[in-house]
Amino acid sequence: MSILSDELNFLIYRYLQESGFNHSAFTFYVESNLTSCNFGNHVIPPGALVTAVQKGLQYVQAEIGINEDGSSFDDSKPLSLIH
Amino acid sequence: MSILSDELNFLIYRYLQESGFNHSAFTFYVESNLTSCNFGNHVIPPGALVTAVQKGLQYVQAEIGINEDGSSFDDSKPLSLIH
Amino acid sequence: MSILSDELNFLIYRYLQESGFNHSAFTFYVESNLTSCNFGNHVIPPGALVTAVQKGLQYVQAEIGINEDGSSFDDSKPLSLIH
Amino acid sequence: MSILSDELNFLIYRYLQESGFNHSAFTFYVESNLTSCNFGNHVIPPGALVTAVQKGLQYVQAEIGINEDGSSFDDSKPLSLIH
Repeated sequence: MSILSDELNFLIYRYLQESGFNHSAFTFYVESNLTSCNFGNHVIPPGALVTAVQKGLQYVQAEIGINEDGSSFDDSKPLSLIH
Repeated sequence: MSILSDELNFLIYRYLQESGFNHSAFTFYVESNLTSCNFGNHVIPPGALVTAVQKGLQYVQAEIGINEDGSSFDDSKPLSLIH
Repeated sequence: MSILSDELNFLIYRYLQESGFNHSAFTFYVESNLTSCNFGNHVIPPGALVTAVQKGLQYVQAEIGINEDGSSFDDSKPLSLIH
Repeated sequence: MSILSDELNFLIYRYLQESGFNHSAFTFYVESNLTSCNFGNHVIPPGALVTAVQKGLQYVQAEIGINEDGSSFDDSKPLSLIH
């Protein structure tokens, strides 16, 4: 199972735009060759990249919780991507 | 549950570097103010952003599979972030 | 006789700004390390780089005119930087 | 008398490249739309922008020298673009 590189790049591009990183968005759009992709007509919900990453962290956290003691994990603490 | 903005930005920065988007990486590093963050000493596994997003898609796909008919989902097809 | 590198870089930076090349201006400001230069208090006339280059072309054109036949050169034609 | 905007942009682009400002060169090439210009076949001497600006400063300096007292100017001091 894999995601398509262009799709991930497009989500990153949207994230850069939504977060106000205008210079990065411009450079990335060109450098990742998104100009040749046809995502213009697709409706992407705001925050799609953040949502996907958060879901991924929940998934990992759930796996850890189940593997260790079967109890549900504490979702009041922020998850960390960097250890 | 939320992820920290700086952490997500750092994963994106690493993705840009790993993918050879050097110009975008340079611009994003400055624009997102990662210069003032202290992630230099942290060990980030290669492909961390891709892994997190893929896990998130699996999570969503699993939810869809369970909600609809209880059967397991087909992981031979690539998941799509964009509909 | 030489111009200082930082000064030329600052004129280029101003040109990028004045011409609406905002992404280039941002990247160049950081990459050329103008952040550490102290030109903020200096008053630079608008179009300073263009003026300097045009003067340079006049100078060259005048030299050519004098060297060849002693007559004055025709300034109705646009000068070309690229041959 | 004027220089063509595309020509000046191309000289700046070459300067950015020659000076090792690779990120700025990349961004500027795209943002200034040099992709659609046909300068690829032209031979530009190295340092063309620096040369043009220096000539411009000499021209200005010569004008000042002649206007004031008729004596030649001292070219041992670096000329300054910023006052």
